[in-house]
Amino acid sequence: MRTILIIGAGRSASSLIQYLLEKSVSEELHLIIGDLSLTLAEKKTNNHPNATPIALDIFDVNQRKNAIQKADIVISMLPAHLHIEVARDCIVYKKHLVTASYISDAMQELNEAAKANNLIFMNEIGLDPGIDHMSAMKVIDEIREQGGKMLLFESFCGGLVAPESDDNLWNYKFTWAPRNVVLAGQGGAAKFIQEGTYKYIPYVNLFRRTEFLEVEGYGKFEAYSNRDSLKYRSVYGLDDVLTLYRGTIRRVGFSKAWNMFVQLGMTDDSYIMENSENMSYRQFVNSFLPYHPTDSVEIKMRLILKIDQDDIMWDKLVELDLFNRNKKVGLKDATPAQILEKILTDSWTLQHDDKDMIVMYHKFGYVLNGEEKQIDSKMVCIGEDQIYTAMAKTVGLPVAMATLLILNGKITTPGVQLPIHKEVYLPILKELEEYGVIFNEQAMPYVGYNPDKVFS
Amino acid sequence: MRTILIIGAGRSASSLIQYLLEKSVSEELHLIIGDLSLTLAEKKTNNHPNATPIALDIFDVNQRKNAIQKADIVISMLPAHLHIEVARDCIVYKKHLVTASYISDAMQELNEAAKANNLIFMNEIGLDPGIDHMSAMKVIDEIREQGGKMLLFESFCGGLVAPESDDNLWNYKFTWAPRNVVLAGQGGAAKFIQEGTYKYIPYVNLFRRTEFLEVEGYGKFEAYSNRDSLKYRSVYGLDDVLTLYRGTIRRVGFSKAWNMFVQLGMTDDSYIMENSENMSYRQFVNSFLPYHPTDSVEIKMRLILKIDQDDIMWDKLVELDLFNRNKKVGLKDATPAQILEKILTDSWTLQHDDKDMIVMYHKFGYVLNGEEKQIDSKMVCIGEDQIYTAMAKTVGLPVAMATLLILNGKITTPGVQLPIHKEVYLPILKELEEYGVIFNEQAMPYVGYNPDKVFS
Repeated sequence: MRTILIIGAGRSASSLIQYLLEKSVSEELHLIIGDLSLTLAEKKTNNHPNATPIALDIFDVNQRKNAIQKADIVISMLPAHLHIEVARDCIVYKKHLVTASYISDAMQELNEAAKANNLIFMNEIGLDPGIDHMSAMKVIDEIREQGGKMLLFESFCGGLVAPESDDNLWNYKFTWAPRNVVLAGQGGAAKFIQEGTYKYIPYVNLFRRTEFLEVEGYGKFEAYSNRDSLKYRSVYGLDDVLTLYRGTIRRVGFSKAWNMFVQLGMTDDSYIMENSENMSYRQFVNSFLPYHPTDSVEIKMRLILKIDQDDIMWDKLVELDLFNRNKKVGLKDATPAQILEKILTDSWTLQHDDKDMIVMYHKFGYVLNGEEKQIDSKMVCIGEDQIYTAMAKTVGLPVAMATLLILNGKITTPGVQLPIHKEVYLPILKELEEYGVIFNEQAMPYVGYNPDKVFS
Repeated sequence: MRTILIIGAGRSASSLIQYLLEKSVSEELHLIIGDLSLTLAEKKTNNHPNATPIALDIFDVNQRKNAIQKADIVISMLPAHLHIEVARDCIVYKKHLVTASYISDAMQELNEAAKANNLIFMNEIGLDPGIDHMSAMKVIDEIREQGGKMLLFESFCGGLVAPESDDNLWNYKFTWAPRNVVLAGQGGAAKFIQEGTYKYIPYVNLFRRTEFLEVEGYGKFEAYSNRDSLKYRSVYGLDDVLTLYRGTIRRVGFSKAWNMFVQLGMTDDSYIMENSENMSYRQFVNSFLPYHPTDSVEIKMRLILKIDQDDIMWDKLVELDLFNRNKKVGLKDATPAQILEKILTDSWTLQHDDKDMIVMYHKFGYVLNGEEKQIDSKMVCIGEDQIYTAMAKTVGLPVAMATLLILNGKITTPGVQLPIHKEVYLPILKELEEYGVIFNEQAMPYVGYNPDKVFS
């Protein structure tokens, strides 16, 4: 029996645990499932004979070290900033480690120690980051093996509500941390490259400079720019690519409507609003509008946002019950962003029968034998229910698969890794297809932004 | 002879030094004028028999302590964050201190020590802060002495170009640190109170939510909200006032045009632009616009900012030479804000014969014997030339006057102070009138924002 310690049994661990439990007999696995809440660990274990739930407080050093010593490999599903203590213990006790989080500077510093101990610390192997790396590198490597040279790489991903559960005017519900949705795009301008030119979009314009994407069978989407489009330029070997862009996918119209909150200042997380606890939703809105003794909040809002009588944008606001005089915020010392999150959660929480949906879309432009070509690669994944969501599947399954591949000696490169090598992405992408995570690759004429090489 | 040590002989010290030199015979003053640049100190001293220029590096502890020991009182005209070491030495050597800067937390911590040594540390006694405190507290105290109760206080100030030198479409030139103008309004939402309601304006809306002000003989101005409208609420004793607002004055149309830079992201100081040194002004602009192989920077700019063919806003941009292909930024690793400052400095630098102008405007609403009343108090000060600017006068003269009043035992309250007490503001406001800094107070009907007490 090989022992796998899973730290953190929250929402994102459900598909991961299900997968490993299913494989536990044939693969001779014993799972230790640790969570701060023993109840949660027990629930996820579900009395499976090959699994042991434990209460695990990672801030309790002895408890943490004991648990790690018993494992052959450790999966950390903790929030990203909590991985590092686990990682250091993994060096001490010589255990492999798998996480779905971005490689932090502290994690990167363990690279030499991990290599010296022949340990694999596989990170960024969830959805985004994770499946995006793998599905992109697969196509990029194939293009290069044919002798092609990359011209353009654009990559988009979004967590959305499935079409059958899409019943509000925003065509959006929260399928992941709502706070991250409210704060999206803040903290600096988006930076990317188009046709060799660096471009910058400030937060105030971010949700207006979207582009449309078409996914066959699912209709039109839009994407706004991520802040970090250039983050993987060197990792992917794209230092001389002409166009590099990463974006977040929403249904058409979401971003323009979201921009109303940005313009009013409702997404600001930098200050506390006076008397937030007893404020009504209507008073919250009015805080961002000029004072007037008789003009209504509604007309002031229409004027400042320039919303015509026949504009559906208005109905999007009304649908959120923003103008309610009786609903109280009920949050003490809250920032505008926290209050907005509360208001949106009222409307955008997945209901019992709702399903979520992940959409990923890559564009690869390249030149091969003097000819410009393009491949578009698209993936849509719909959740099964509220536990085995598309998000839980796409984040958890690659983590689980990588864990098994490491245990079985199929992934062998030691050090602090991310899944950009064939030994990782080939088997995982192949196996993911069995679980409905299928990329549809399509050859098409190169579009780019200046295919005729015109100089302005 | 009483010895005054003046640390810092830059632009803002010219009127201050001139005033003290003029008084030096009758008042038996000896000035030691210290600056990092001996040449600058000598220039400001101008061979006056009662003044000694010295080279003074405040980071040279011995040099600093020696200079301070020789003085009876110290004036620090250093940048605000450099006062504190001087202030600590003033405690050690028991010297009074005068600065025109906001009281920092570190400065406030010296309050008890200053009191224990019977020392006066007078701060915020320039223009803004300074003359604003004094001219406001004079009227507020008068209203209270009559038995009135304050309802509303609004206070506006701006450093502008004098009408006779106002020759560009922005009706603006830099009369003070350009960097502060470019960064104005950043770092958090503006917060104020209107009719008892807290209001917040985000940076993206700040330059659109202006209000107009009329100053007889000088025409119309506009003001955008300062971030810190509530800063002096308690200091002024206005904790229960219904309306409290502070703003920055510009000529009409400036803010709406400035907002173009905000929307494009050109005022962002948080990141460095790629290849900023060799970038042309035109390329700088194009960095914030979508890529297109043939559409011009001009048409993309018009579209994103929605500038019609007949809109003078466009000419404001052209006037700045923003679309020049040949002018290079020439700044290495520069932020958008630094580049914008460079571009604006080309156009908005005061020319040899230009004069500057300070405008201050207070509104005081109050109820007296059951009747609502209002006083508007306005001051305009025009500079003499490029050395004795309105800014140098209004910042430097109150500092100089306070220094003399302290030396002469007319200001006696020890501790870390700001000029809100009669012993300070009465003599200084009176003497300022001799120098053309005159407040015109006008009784008028109470305006407020809800004079009829309508409830919405």
